[in-house]
Parts: sequence; C-alpha cells; structure tokens
Amino acid sequence: MSLIDTAWSPDLFASLTDIWKQQLSAHLRSVQANDEKVLNWSEPAEAAKLAAELMARGRSTSSIEDCFESLIRQALSAGQNLQHPRYIGHQVPANIPLAALFDAAGSVTNQVMAIYEMGPWATAVECAIVQALTDKIGWQSDTAGGLLTSGGSLANLTALLTARNVCLADSWETGVPSDVVLVAHPDTHYSIARSAGILGLGTQQVVRAAITNDRHIDPQQLSNQLRSLREANKTVTAVVACACATPIGAFDDLNAVADVCENQDVWLHVDAAHGASALMSRQHRHKLTGIERADSVVWDAHKMLFVPALCAALLYKNRAHRFETFRQDAPYLFDPSNPGLADYDSGISTIECTKRAMGFGLWGIWSLFGEELFEQMVDRTFERGHQLWQKLNDADDFEPLHEPECNIVAFRYLPPHIANASEEIQDRFQFDLRTRLIQSGDFYIVQAKLNGRSVLRACVMNPLTTEADLQELLNTLRRHAIDMMA
Amino acid sequence: MSLIDTAWSPDLFASLTDIWKQQLSAHLRSVQANDEKVLNWSEPAEAAKLAAELMARGRSTSSIEDCFESLIRQALSAGQNLQHPRYIGHQVPANIPLAALFDAAGSVTNQVMAIYEMGPWATAVECAIVQALTDKIGWQSDTAGGLLTSGGSLANLTALLTARNVCLADSWETGVPSDVVLVAHPDTHYSIARSAGILGLGTQQVVRAAITNDRHIDPQQLSNQLRSLREANKTVTAVVACACATPIGAFDDLNAVADVCENQDVWLHVDAAHGASALMSRQHRHKLTGIERADSVVWDAHKMLFVPALCAALLYKNRAHRFETFRQDAPYLFDPSNPGLADYDSGISTIECTKRAMGFGLWGIWSLFGEELFEQMVDRTFERGHQLWQKLNDADDFEPLHEPECNIVAFRYLPPHIANASEEIQDRFQFDLRTRLIQSGDFYIVQAKLNGRSVLRACVMNPLTTEADLQELLNTLRRHAIDMMA
Repeated sequence: MSLIDTAWSPDLFASLTDIWKQQLSAHLRSVQANDEKVLNWSEPAEAAKLAAELMARGRSTSSIEDCFESLIRQALSAGQNLQHPRYIGHQVPANIPLAALFDAAGSVTNQVMAIYEMGPWATAVECAIVQALTDKIGWQSDTAGGLLTSGGSLANLTALLTARNVCLADSWETGVPSDVVLVAHPDTHYSIARSAGILGLGTQQVVRAAITNDRHIDPQQLSNQLRSLREANKTVTAVVACACATPIGAFDDLNAVADVCENQDVWLHVDAAHGASALMSRQHRHKLTGIERADSVVWDAHKMLFVPALCAALLYKNRAHRFETFRQDAPYLFDPSNPGLADYDSGISTIECTKRAMGFGLWGIWSLFGEELFEQMVDRTFERGHQLWQKLNDADDFEPLHEPECNIVAFRYLPPHIANASEEIQDRFQFDLRTRLIQSGDFYIVQAKLNGRSVLRACVMNPLTTEADLQELLNTLRRHAIDMMA
Repeated sequence: MSLIDTAWSPDLFASLTDIWKQQLSAHLRSVQANDEKVLNWSEPAEAAKLAAELMARGRSTSSIEDCFESLIRQALSAGQNLQHPRYIGHQVPANIPLAALFDAAGSVTNQVMAIYEMGPWATAVECAIVQALTDKIGWQSDTAGGLLTSGGSLANLTALLTARNVCLADSWETGVPSDVVLVAHPDTHYSIARSAGILGLGTQQVVRAAITNDRHIDPQQLSNQLRSLREANKTVTAVVACACATPIGAFDDLNAVADVCENQDVWLHVDAAHGASALMSRQHRHKLTGIERADSVVWDAHKMLFVPALCAALLYKNRAHRFETFRQDAPYLFDPSNPGLADYDSGISTIECTKRAMGFGLWGIWSLFGEELFEQMVDRTFERGHQLWQKLNDADDFEPLHEPECNIVAFRYLPPHIANASEEIQDRFQFDLRTRLIQSGDFYIVQAKLNGRSVLRACVMNPLTTEADLQELLNTLRRHAIDMMA
C-alpha cells in the first residue's frame, strides 16, 4: 500500500479513531476529576524542540497505531487543561466536548465556505446560527444579518472596517483621510486599537471614551466628547461600547450609549464577545438591554456558548451593511449572473476566503440540547462569579475589587505582611504569587492591570467548577504565599 | 443528570464517538468509491431553513444517540464532497482524514494560543512547523520566523500590513499618507487588492505589474514600473508575486523578480499559498527557485499539504519583522516582565487573539508519515494535471489554454456546434455546461475568466483522483453537452 493509500484509508481512520476515543475520554475523565494539573508548564524552547524532533524523527520502526497513540498522548499531556474545573483564567471555555465531534465531522470532510457551492451545508448552518443569534438580540431576521469569522479580533476588525466604509464612502478605493477617529471605551480589547492601526486611521486616532468610577461609559460625557470632536472637524467612524469589558466584566448601559449615538448619528459597535451570551439567560439578559440599537455586535460563541475556538459572530442590525465591508469583484469566484447567491457566498462579507465550517459545533449542540443548556451554563458560571466574590469579601486577607456583573472577578491577595507594604511590593507580590500558582498546576488564573495596579483576575469558564473549587482557590493562594516566604 | 453533566460526560462522549466513527468511515468509503455525488446541491434558502428547523426543534422524544446520528448524517449528506475523486475544483483539498483526528484532539480540549501559557503545546507545534517550512524555503532557522493564521487571505493581509509598517514607520500610529501604492501581479488572489482597501491605501493604489503572454510577471517591465513610480513620488510598500497565480497556475520567475526588488529596495511578498508545497518535491521544487529572496511568503498547509482548513503560514525571512505588524501593548495579556516570551506569545504577531491549535493536523501527519508523503501528494497531483492537459490536447473538441505548471488546468469545451459560434455563445456555453455538470453531482470543476473570456478550470486536489477519472471528465462533459441540446 502506498503512503497515499494508507493516509486516506477509511479502515485505518476507523481504527485510529478507536484509539483517539479511548485517549480523549480517559483524558476528560481524569481532568474533570482533578487528577491532572491545570497547566502543564514547560519551558517554551524545550517544548518547541521536542515538537520539532517528533516531526523530524518520523515513526521509524513503531507501528502507525503506536506512533499515533504516542503523538496524541503528547498533545494531551503538554497543554493547558481548559477542561479542568480549576481552570478559572482567560475568557476561553472548557468547551462542550461533544461540540468538537460536530466540528470534526466538518474537518474530516473539509467542509468549507467562500462561495455557496463549496459548502452548501456549512453555509446553511451559518445562516441558521446568524438568524438564531440575531433573534436573541431582538432583530428581525429579514432585516438583520451577519457572519461567522475566525475570532473576536477579526470580527471587531471587520465591523470597524464596515463602519469606516459606511462613514467614508471613498475610503475603500482612495484611502483614509486624516482627522478620522474612533471613540472607544478605554477597557476595550486590544483588537479595537489595533483595528485603528490596521485600517489606516492610526492608533493615535482612538479617543478614549470617558468612564465612570465603576468602569462604564459615562453617556453624558460621551455626548460632550462627540460634540467637541465634531466641532474640531473630526469624523467619528464609530463608538465602541463593551458588553462586557475585559478587566472587571462591566456591561455598558447600552440604551444610554445608543441615545447618544443616535442623537449624533454615529455608528454604534458593541463588543459583546463575552457578554452577549447572557441573552440566553432570563435572569441575566437585562444586562444587555439596548443592544438591539447597536449597528454591529460581536458575539463569540467560543466564549460563553462553550463551543471550541474559533466561532465568532459579527451581527449587523442592517444586513445590507455586510456588502459595505469590501467593494470588490472576484469574478472567478462570485457569480455576477446569480446575484441572489451573494447572500450565501460567505467570502463577500468575511476577510477569510476559504473559511471553516465553524458553525457545526454550535449548531450541533443547539440542535441536540436546545437553548436550555446555554441558559444553564450562563447562569451557573455567573453564579460562581458571585460566589467567588462573596468568599473574597468574607475573607480578611483578600480584597475583591468590584461586585461582579458576570463571571469575571478581579481581586488582590493581601496577607498581613503585604497589606502594609508599598504599592510596588504589593504589585510584585500579586504577580509572583500568580506565577507560582499557575506553574504549580493547582489552578489557573490571570494577571491584569487595573488603574495601574497589578491584580489577580478569575473568570469561571467551566460549568463544572464547584463552589468548593473556589474556596480551595483562596486556600491554595494562602498556601503558596506562605511557601513563598520560606 | 443535569443538562450540563450530560453535555460534559466522558462516557457519552465515548459512546457518541463510536457512532461518529461508524458514520465518518462509512462516508469516506462510499465517497472514495464514487458511490456518492460530488456536490450535494440544494437551494440555499431551503437548506438554511432546514438547518434552522433542526436547531429550533431540538431532539424532542428521540434519544441523544439517535439525534446525534441524524445530525451527523445530515451534515455529511448535504455538503460538497471534497473527498470525492471527482472533486477537481477549487484549491481546497481532499484532506488527509487522519489530520482531522489530530485537529480534533485540540478541539475537544480547546487548546488555543494567544499567550504561551494558554497553549504551551499548541505553541510548540507552531514553532516546529514554522521551522520546518522555513527550512524548506532555505532560510536559517535562527534568523527566519513566522506564524500560522486563519487562512491565506488573512496571511496576505498580515504580510502587507507588516510591509506597510516597515516601509512607513509612522503609519501604525498616524495613518497612511496618500501616494502609497502596492504593485501586484494582476492575477493575484482578490485578498491582495482587498488588503489595500483594508489597510488604508485604497484599492485604486494597486498597480498591476506588467505580465507576459503566459501570465508571468515581466521583470524588465516591472523594473521600469518601479522606476516610474519612484519618479512620480509614489511610495511602493511591496511587490506581490505569485507562486503560483490562481487562473492557470503560473509560477513567477522569483529570482528575476527578486533582482528587481533588491535593486530598488522594495519589499517582495510572494503569495505561494498554493505552490509553496512544491518545495516538498525534488521534481518540482525548482519552480520556486528564488523564493528564499522574498521578504515574506504565504504558504497554505490547507492547500497542497492536504490538511483540513484553515492552516496558513506566513513566513518572514527576517523574524524581527513579526514585531512590526502591530506596535502595541496589551499589558493584561503580554507580559512585559518576561520579554523572552514574546517569541512564544502568538498574539503579538497575528490578527487573532485566541487562535486555534491549527498546526496539530500538519504536525501529526508529518510526524506519522514523514516528509515523503507530502512529496508523493505533490508529485501525484501535479502529474494528474499534466495528464488532463494531455487528454484535452489529444481531443479535437477540447481547447486547453496553457501547458500546466502544476495541478491547475484551464480549458474550454468547444464541440462543433459551439466552436463556430460567437464569443458570447461560446462563453455562455462554458458557463451553462459547468452549472449543469456540478449540479448533476458527476464532477465538480470551476468556472473562471481568462482574458475576459469564460473558461473551465480544473484543479486536481485529491491524490486519489485517477487518470481514468480525468478521461471520464471529458466524456461526461460531452454527454452533458449533448443533453443540453435535447
């Protein structure tokens, strides 16, 4: 049998899938049971060297089954275990494992999009998802629209490109004049400022929206800022609000921000990558009241809808705006004699040409479990956020920095010998403590800066995280702090 | 058991994987055996409606196993079958099915990148791949570098952003002046012109490089063009050459183009998304001679390295250029106190923040089979391209439009009643014939425009495509043409 025949053999595929199944299900069991470290830390240069050696070595004398097994084992033993209940870190979830089976059905068969005929079912699934998500926002399915793209950063970039082109019709063909600005919540994800750099505005043209002490856009001040910019002959391509912002999970008052934007006729973009999923929850959807007044919304299904990365939705109130992003023919791809297909040719509205069938995971899980699962996941993880805050609040040696609006909680650990130290020592302590914690593999949490100070930050991204795990986080931090003094 | 516990159950995961394995392996068998249509065409609005109904309906009374099985069956029965030996269409492959198992190990566990600690093994794998690919180009691993990103379009955009920032140091912060141009092969992928629109140059600022009759950049004329642009005070951010270009698969003479670019000190970007994989072949690598002189190269592993979409590499001759793409702090992510990690924090050099472990498929296959498999796949599919051209050439009623340089072949079918008709009728005939062919499910090929005329285009993206399949393509086109007259 030639290498090619072996590589494409359905029988070999089936037998290796058996091995894969054993390994993955065993891995999930042991990680869920806290029998593994959260993060398998290794020095980056060493890990890279090992990966290269495995490629260079080939399987030599071992059987293909044995080699496959050892490669999968390596991949599972050397990563970050997001499926661990004590992964409480960045806003990437312990995804629903089953979602990956739907996703992988698309990968085995390489179902992709760009033009409709290359991925009829991938396209159908994307249309259904866009409709379901825009419904949740409260938009009409015959006027709203959207797309899936490879991550929230790309979705933000695409939205701001659309806003730029709508605001400055000639910019696509002739470039961007100076004196064009973007007004954004200062806590927006870094992809917003990057977008200004990419899109030819320049990062200096990002104006920081004034915020309140609790880190929400101040609508009255925003109104004044927009008026001043207009008086200075600046063109504002968009206002970017957050639902929620990353540092402490603050949801802007979208109705108040929308009032200002409508009043001054400025595009409102809401980065709801993390928080839009609260729309699935009867208990929490009020946090997004007013989102239906945005011109564009980013909603990452690979965050709080718990599907594997990447599956980001960019949604437009006015579906026609999808065609403002690029203004270009690609005759060998898009069929001008079939204009009706433009609605289904994904490449017309996304930066990707070939695009994965990235909706399969969400579509499959939604179809298998219904909406109720998503509501439970949101409610559970938001509740855990509140429980963590309560525990921090009850403890004398921890300082919670805000009452959480969702599953994001920023705090500091200030044991007596640190509580009275200088700011510099306190900051360094948070940093060192966290480094020690994550390299131990006991928990994974995040470091952040808040008002210039170093803080710890936890985000409950696994519905299997229990209240006991959260209590244990406090205990474990205390233990590591003691060990640090030794 | 709560919905959450069910959704995360390792036991359910294992039992559904058994169903998945049966379905996928049976699907591969029947598609490889030509027991299925190539394209399962359906009207887009109807397909979208069905996908939405399945989401809305939920599984009602059926068991979770039965519902899962029917959802997977739907996804496999309604797509484009790239695994079919008679898929000879767009430059997206019948991927090695086993690659998807490695990929899915990453999806089940949601291994991602952005910062090193979020995906230590994903990062290690990416480093190993970048090193292996830059080695193939002929670069030194201690000076070259690169990244993986979500598709060739995004890779081209990122490369041209880097080139823009290197050429115009202030453009990141203050925007792009007018009189900045990009010089590109007129057959470059549409993402190149789009990049000019996105990056604030403007699509009108794309200057078409002069090409020869056989669609290669004319180096002498290119030199004159660059000189004229300089004399007109235009800043040229980059020259974009192709290896190969999409329409007929023409590989530019990279040494000759590099001579011009070096001479005039202009960034050379080579879009080798499709053709770089010829570097794996002793027989064909000469087509890329000179690629080592490019400043940036795009190489899609999800094209001719036959892994599932998306896995695009952007490679830099000078690894320091990775840090020119964005010039921005994101303190809560990137750790300024650990500057050594910047080499391993993927988000510093990619538009994606959270990024899939998209290298797992390529890394796994390379480790399992060694480089030889890639050589065989390239040689086989390029050979098939030549065989198809030979058959077209031997037939009186077909007109091949070029001798193929790889696996891409453009041609027209001109039976007697069409050969003497007007150009308009001839063009319409190619279009109608191809529509009929693909909707029949017998074969999948592509339409294109060449010198303003409609043509047919085949690209052999499946090593299982036989010479007999190619002969049958001619016969099938003849049969459909006869049926069209009925």
